Amino acid sequence: MADELQLRETEEFFYRKIPITRAMGVRVAEYDGNHLKLVAPLALNHNHLGTAFGGSLSAIATLAGYGLLWLELRDNTCHLVIRKSSLSFCRPVRREIVAICRRPAWEQLQTFKSAFAEHHKARITLDVTIEEDGLAAVEFSGIFVALR
Amino acid sequence: MADELQLRETEEFFYRKIPITRAMGVRVAEYDGNHLKLVAPLALNHNHLGTAFGGSLSAIATLAGYGLLWLELRDNTCHLVIRKSSLSFCRPVRREIVAICRRPAWEQLQTFKSAFAEHHKARITLDVTIEEDGLAAVEFSGIFVALR
Repeated sequence: MADELQLRETEEFFYRKIPITRAMGVRVAEYDGNHLKLVAPLALNHNHLGTAFGGSLSAIATLAGYGLLWLELRDNTCHLVIRKSSLSFCRPVRREIVAICRRPAWEQLQTFKSAFAEHHKARITLDVTIEEDGLAAVEFSGIFVALR
Repeated sequence: MADELQLRETEEFFYRKIPITRAMGVRVAEYDGNHLKLVAPLALNHNHLGTAFGGSLSAIATLAGYGLLWLELRDNTCHLVIRKSSLSFCRPVRREIVAICRRPAWEQLQTFKSAFAEHHKARITLDVTIEEDGLAAVEFSGIFVALR
Protein backbone atom coordinates (compact mmCIF):
# COMPACT_ATOMS: atom_id res chain seq x y z
CA MET A 1 0.00 0.00 0.00
CA ALA A 2 1.35 3.46 -0.82
CA ASP A 3 -0.23 6.90 -0.76
CA GLU A 4 0.20 9.60 -3.41
CA LEU A 5 3.24 11.08 -1.65
CA GLN A 6 5.04 7.73 -1.50
CA LEU A 7 4.30 7.11 -5.19
CA ARG A 8 5.74 10.52 -6.15
CA GLU A 9 8.79 9.92 -3.92
CA THR A 10 9.41 6.56 -5.60
CA GLU A 11 9.09 8.19 -9.02
CA GLU A 12 11.49 10.98 -8.00
CA PHE A 13 13.94 8.37 -6.71
CA PHE A 14 13.79 6.59 -10.09
CA TYR A 15 14.34 9.83 -12.03
CA ARG A 16 17.23 10.96 -9.84
CA LYS A 17 19.01 7.61 -9.54
CA ILE A 18 18.10 5.80 -12.78
CA PRO A 19 18.06 8.55 -15.43
CA ILE A 20 16.77 6.38 -18.27
CA THR A 21 13.44 6.09 -16.40
CA ARG A 22 12.91 9.84 -16.95
CA ALA A 23 13.70 9.48 -20.66
CA MET A 24 11.15 6.65 -20.77
CA GLY A 25 8.57 8.86 -19.05
CA VAL A 26 7.84 6.19 -16.42
CA ARG A 27 5.17 7.07 -13.89
CA VAL A 28 4.53 5.18 -10.65
CA ALA A 29 0.77 5.07 -10.97
CA GLU A 30 -0.57 3.01 -8.09
CA TYR A 31 0.23 0.55 -5.32
CA ASP A 32 -2.79 -0.87 -3.56
CA GLY A 33 -0.70 -3.31 -1.51
CA ASN A 34 -1.31 -6.15 -3.95
CA HIS A 35 -0.30 -4.70 -7.31
CA LEU A 36 2.23 -2.03 -8.20
CA LYS A 37 1.38 -0.33 -11.49
CA LEU A 38 3.93 1.57 -13.57
CA VAL A 39 3.01 3.25 -16.85
CA ALA A 40 5.00 4.82 -19.69
CA PRO A 41 3.90 6.53 -22.92
CA LEU A 42 4.29 4.73 -26.23
CA ALA A 43 5.60 7.94 -27.85
CA LEU A 44 8.90 7.64 -25.94
CA ASN A 45 9.12 3.86 -26.09
CA HIS A 46 8.05 2.70 -29.53
CA ASN A 47 10.05 0.63 -31.99
CA HIS A 48 10.39 0.61 -35.78
CA LEU A 49 6.91 -0.99 -36.06
CA GLY A 50 5.17 1.68 -33.98
CA THR A 51 4.57 -0.78 -31.11
CA ALA A 52 6.41 -0.83 -27.79
CA PHE A 53 10.13 -1.64 -28.05
CA GLY A 54 11.03 -4.97 -26.41
CA GLY A 55 13.89 -3.25 -24.60
CA SER A 56 11.57 -0.66 -23.04
CA LEU A 57 9.13 -3.41 -22.02
CA SER A 58 11.92 -5.32 -20.40
CA ALA A 59 13.22 -2.19 -18.63
CA ILE A 60 9.84 -1.18 -17.20
CA ALA A 61 9.16 -4.74 -16.02
CA THR A 62 12.53 -4.81 -14.24
CA LEU A 63 11.76 -1.43 -12.68
CA ALA A 64 8.37 -2.63 -11.47
CA GLY A 65 10.15 -5.43 -9.58
CA TYR A 66 12.60 -2.98 -7.95
CA GLY A 67 9.75 -0.62 -7.16
CA LEU A 68 7.69 -3.23 -5.37
CA LEU A 69 10.65 -4.29 -3.23
CA TRP A 70 11.53 -0.67 -2.38
CA LEU A 71 7.98 0.05 -1.30
CA GLU A 72 7.82 -3.18 0.73
CA LEU A 73 11.26 -2.98 2.35
CA ARG A 74 11.69 0.79 2.90
CA ASP A 75 15.26 0.10 3.98
CA ASN A 76 18.01 2.47 2.81
CA THR A 77 20.79 0.06 3.80
CA CYS A 78 19.51 -2.57 1.40
CA HIS A 79 21.03 -2.94 -2.08
CA LEU A 80 18.67 -4.53 -4.57
CA VAL A 81 19.99 -6.16 -7.72
CA ILE A 82 18.48 -8.36 -10.38
CA ARG A 83 20.06 -11.79 -10.86
CA LYS A 84 17.98 -13.41 -13.60
CA SER A 85 14.99 -12.59 -15.71
CA SER A 86 12.91 -14.28 -18.35
CA LEU A 87 10.35 -12.67 -20.61
CA SER A 88 7.70 -13.91 -23.01
CA PHE A 89 6.43 -11.39 -25.52
CA CYS A 90 2.94 -12.71 -26.31
CA ARG A 91 1.46 -9.82 -28.31
CA PRO A 92 2.46 -6.28 -29.32
CA VAL A 93 1.71 -3.30 -27.07
CA ARG A 94 0.04 -0.59 -29.17
CA ARG A 95 -0.78 2.07 -26.58
CA GLU A 96 0.49 3.23 -23.18
CA ILE A 97 2.70 0.61 -21.50
CA VAL A 98 1.09 -0.66 -18.28
CA ALA A 99 3.30 -2.91 -16.13
CA ILE A 100 1.86 -4.62 -13.06
CA CYS A 101 4.02 -6.31 -10.44
CA ARG A 102 2.12 -8.67 -8.17
CA ARG A 103 3.07 -8.62 -4.51
CA PRO A 104 4.29 -12.12 -3.54
CA ALA A 105 2.33 -14.10 -0.94
CA TRP A 106 2.70 -12.81 2.61
CA GLU A 107 4.69 -15.90 3.72
CA GLN A 108 7.11 -15.56 0.81
CA LEU A 109 7.76 -11.91 1.58
CA GLN A 110 8.24 -12.69 5.29
CA THR A 111 10.76 -15.45 4.47
CA PHE A 112 12.62 -12.98 2.27
CA LYS A 113 12.64 -10.26 4.97
CA SER A 114 13.76 -12.74 7.67
CA ALA A 115 16.55 -14.13 5.50
CA PHE A 116 17.71 -10.57 4.79
CA ALA A 117 17.64 -9.62 8.47
CA GLU A 118 19.55 -12.76 9.48
CA HIS A 119 22.01 -13.30 6.61
CA HIS A 120 22.15 -9.77 5.12
CA LYS A 121 21.30 -11.43 1.82
CA ALA A 122 18.08 -12.82 0.42
CA ARG A 123 16.48 -13.59 -2.91
CA ILE A 124 12.93 -13.47 -4.16
CA THR A 125 11.13 -14.13 -7.44
CA LEU A 126 8.75 -11.46 -8.71
CA ASP A 127 6.30 -11.66 -11.58
CA VAL A 128 5.32 -8.71 -13.71
CA THR A 129 2.69 -8.63 -16.43
CA ILE A 130 2.41 -5.97 -19.10
CA GLU A 131 -1.24 -5.81 -20.04
CA GLU A 132 -3.33 -4.32 -22.82
CA ASP A 133 -7.09 -4.67 -23.24
CA GLY A 134 -7.17 -7.08 -20.32
CA LEU A 135 -4.73 -9.48 -22.00
CA ALA A 136 -1.13 -10.24 -21.09
CA ALA A 137 1.22 -8.76 -23.70
CA VAL A 138 4.43 -9.58 -21.81
CA GLU A 139 5.07 -12.01 -18.97
CA PHE A 140 8.20 -11.25 -16.92
CA SER A 141 9.69 -13.29 -14.10
CA GLY A 142 12.75 -11.98 -12.28
CA ILE A 143 14.95 -13.14 -9.41
CA PHE A 144 15.94 -10.16 -7.27
CA VAL A 145 18.60 -10.21 -4.58
CA ALA A 146 18.80 -7.91 -1.56
CA LEU A 147 22.28 -7.30 -0.12
CA ARG A 148 23.45 -5.23 2.83
CA MET B 1 30.43 -7.44 -42.05
CA ALA B 2 29.53 -3.75 -42.19
CA ASP B 3 31.50 -0.65 -43.14
CA GLU B 4 31.43 2.67 -41.31
CA LEU B 5 28.55 3.98 -43.45
CA GLN B 6 26.37 0.95 -42.72
CA LEU B 7 27.09 1.24 -39.00
CA ARG B 8 26.07 4.92 -39.00
CA GLU B 9 22.93 4.09 -41.03
CA THR B 10 21.95 1.40 -38.52
CA GLU B 11 22.51 3.82 -35.66
CA GLU B 12 20.44 6.51 -37.41
CA PHE B 13 17.68 3.93 -38.01
CA PHE B 14 17.68 3.11 -34.29
CA TYR B 15 17.53 6.78 -33.28
CA ARG B 16 14.76 7.61 -35.73
CA LYS B 17 12.61 4.53 -35.17
CA ILE B 18 13.35 3.55 -31.55
CA PRO B 19 13.74 6.87 -29.72
CA ILE B 20 14.81 5.39 -26.38
CA THR B 21 18.07 4.26 -28.05
CA ARG B 22 19.02 7.92 -28.50
CA ALA B 23 18.25 8.65 -24.84
CA MET B 24 20.48 5.68 -23.94
CA GLY B 25 23.26 7.05 -26.15
CA VAL B 26 23.65 3.71 -27.96
CA ARG B 27 26.36 3.57 -30.60
CA VAL B 28 26.73 0.84 -33.21
CA ALA B 29 30.46 0.39 -32.81
CA GLU B 30 31.51 -2.49 -35.03
CA TYR B 31 30.38 -5.49 -37.06
CA ASP B 32 33.18 -7.67 -38.33
CA GLY B 33 30.80 -10.30 -39.70
CA ASN B 34 31.13 -12.45 -36.60
CA HIS B 35 30.34 -10.05 -33.75
CA LEU B 36 28.17 -6.97 -33.64
CA LYS B 37 29.25 -4.58 -30.91
CA LEU B 38 26.96 -1.91 -29.43
CA VAL B 39 28.11 0.45 -26.70
CA ALA B 40 26.35 2.93 -24.40
CA PRO B 41 27.69 5.29 -21.74
CA LEU B 42 27.14 4.49 -18.05
CA ALA B 43 26.25 8.15 -17.39
CA LEU B 44 22.90 7.74 -19.19
CA ASN B 45 22.25 4.17 -18.04
CA HIS B 46 23.23 3.86 -14.41
CA ASN B 47 21.05 2.76 -11.54
CA HIS B 48 20.77 3.76 -7.88
CA LEU B 49 24.04 1.92 -7.12
CA GLY B 50 26.05 3.72 -9.80
CA THR B 51 26.31 0.56 -11.92
CA ALA B 52 24.44 -0.16 -15.14
CA PHE B 53 20.65 -0.44 -14.72
CA GLY B 54 19.35 -3.97 -15.44
CA GLY B 55 16.68 -2.48 -17.69
CA SER B 56 19.26 -0.67 -19.83
CA LEU B 57 21.35 -3.85 -20.05
CA SER B 58 18.32 -5.79 -21.17
CA ALA B 59 17.37 -3.12 -23.71
CA ILE B 60 20.82 -2.92 -25.30
CA ALA B 61 21.08 -6.72 -25.49
CA THR B 62 17.70 -6.87 -27.24
CA LEU B 63 18.81 -4.13 -29.62
CA ALA B 64 22.03 -5.99 -30.44
CA GLY B 65 19.92 -8.96 -31.54
CA TYR B 66 17.74 -6.77 -33.79
CA GLY B 67 20.81 -5.04 -35.14
CA LEU B 68 22.55 -8.25 -36.14
CA LEU B 69 19.45 -9.50 -37.97
CA TRP B 70 18.97 -6.16 -39.75
CA LEU B 71 22.56 -6.15 -40.93
CA GLU B 72 22.33 -9.78 -42.03
CA LEU B 73 18.91 -9.63 -43.72
CA ARG B 74 18.89 -6.13 -45.24
CA ASP B 75 15.24 -6.66 -46.16
CA ASN B 76 12.80 -3.78 -45.68
CA THR B 77 9.76 -6.04 -46.06
CA CYS B 78 10.78 -8.05 -43.02
CA HIS B 79 9.29 -7.30 -39.60
CA LEU B 80 11.46 -8.46 -36.73
CA VAL B 81 10.03 -9.04 -33.29
CA ILE B 82 11.32 -10.62 -30.12
CA ARG B 83 9.36 -13.60 -28.77
CA LYS B 84 11.29 -14.67 -25.68
CA SER B 85 14.38 -13.65 -23.80
CA SER B 86 16.30 -14.81 -20.78
CA LEU B 87 19.05 -12.96 -18.98
CA SER B 88 21.59 -13.81 -16.30
CA PHE B 89 23.17 -10.88 -14.52
CA CYS B 90 26.49 -12.33 -13.35
CA ARG B 91 28.33 -9.20 -12.17
CA PRO B 92 27.76 -5.43 -12.16
CA VAL B 93 28.82 -3.26 -15.11
CA ARG B 94 30.81 -0.31 -13.76
CA ARG B 95 31.89 1.49 -16.94
CA GLU B 96 30.70 1.83 -20.54
CA ILE B 97 28.19 -0.88 -21.51
CA VAL B 98 29.60 -3.13 -24.25
CA ALA B 99 27.11 -5.60 -25.77
CA ILE B 100 28.30 -8.21 -28.26
CA CYS B 101 25.93 -10.28 -30.38
CA ARG B 102 27.51 -13.35 -31.91
CA ARG B 103 26.50 -14.17 -35.47
CA PRO B 104 24.90 -17.64 -35.50
CA ALA B 105 26.58 -20.44 -37.45
CA TRP B 106 26.32 -20.09 -41.23
CA GLU B 107 23.96 -23.11 -41.50
CA GLN B 108 21.64 -21.77 -38.83
CA LEU B 109 21.38 -18.40 -40.55
CA GLN B 110 20.76 -20.08 -43.93
CA THR B 111 17.96 -22.21 -42.45
CA PHE B 112 16.42 -19.04 -41.00
CA LYS B 113 16.65 -17.15 -44.32
CA SER B 114 15.23 -20.12 -46.29
CA ALA B 115 12.32 -20.55 -43.87
CA PHE B 116 11.59 -16.82 -44.15
CA ALA B 117 11.72 -16.90 -47.96
CA GLU B 118 9.44 -19.93 -48.12
CA HIS B 119 6.96 -19.41 -45.26
CA HIS B 120 7.27 -15.62 -44.75
CA LYS B 121 7.97 -16.45 -41.12
CA ALA B 122 11.04 -17.78 -39.35
CA ARG B 123 12.60 -17.80 -35.90
CA ILE B 124 16.15 -17.79 -34.69
CA THR B 125 17.92 -17.77 -31.32
CA LEU B 126 20.60 -15.14 -30.76
CA ASP B 127 23.06 -14.85 -27.90
CA VAL B 128 24.40 -11.56 -26.61
CA THR B 129 27.06 -11.06 -23.95
CA ILE B 130 27.69 -7.83 -22.08
CA GLU B 131 31.33 -7.85 -21.16
CA GLU B 132 33.62 -5.94 -18.85
CA ASP B 133 37.32 -6.58 -18.29
CA GLY B 134 37.08 -9.67 -20.47
CA LEU B 135 34.41 -11.24 -18.25
CA ALA B 136 30.74 -11.81 -18.97
CA ALA B 137 28.63 -9.44 -16.89
CA VAL B 138 25.31 -10.35 -18.55
CA GLU B 139 24.34 -13.36 -20.67
CA PHE B 140 21.30 -12.81 -22.89
CA SER B 141 19.56 -15.34 -25.10
CA GLY B 142 16.63 -14.24 -27.25
CA ILE B 143 14.27 -15.86 -29.73
CA PHE B 144 13.59 -13.46 -32.59
CA VAL B 145 10.90 -13.90 -35.23
CA ALA B 146 10.92 -12.48 -38.75
CA LEU B 147 7.51 -11.86 -40.34
CA ARG B 148 6.53 -10.54 -43.75
